[in-house]
Amino acid sequence: METVIGTIAGILTSVSMIPQLIKVLKEKDVENLSWGMIAVLLIGVSLWVVYGIMKNELPIILSNGFSVLVNTILLIYYFKYKNQ
Amino acid sequence: METVIGTIAGILTSVSMIPQLIKVLKEKDVENLSWGMIAVLLIGVSLWVVYGIMKNELPIILSNGFSVLVNTILLIYYFKYKNQ
Repeated sequence: METVIGTIAGILTSVSMIPQLIKVLKEKDVENLSWGMIAVLLIGVSLWVVYGIMKNELPIILSNGFSVLVNTILLIYYFKYKNQ
Repeated sequence: METVIGTIAGILTSVSMIPQLIKVLKEKDVENLSWGMIAVLLIGVSLWVVYGIMKNELPIILSNGFSVLVNTILLIYYFKYKNQ
């Protein structure tokens, strides 16, 4: 039962990141992004992946792994397009 | 050891939400917010709190509980100031 709840929670929290990612990918508009906060979030979700691996909990690994991917892309785009 | 990693992860992911919250509280600028995505995120992190309670994992309960608080405030501010 917990795995079902964790999987739904993970899907919802992952889905909620997509609009911002699409907006940045489409418009290359990184003005509203704070690279400091993305970096803090990236370290945080990376540690959640480590936590999930240590606890052997797939919902935590997958949802935070997705967040690592999204925030890595945001960070790359931030430094690529910040001076435009 | 896992609890230490989960606690640090939770603190970092919580800290990363604070600048946006402060900006909205100060400037009442909700133009960039999508109430749909805040609602999706709110349901997601609420389910993570349920997951944490079922698994009896404090780091998950506390960090997602904080996220429930932040996103509830954002949602209230969104509907209060969206027509300004």
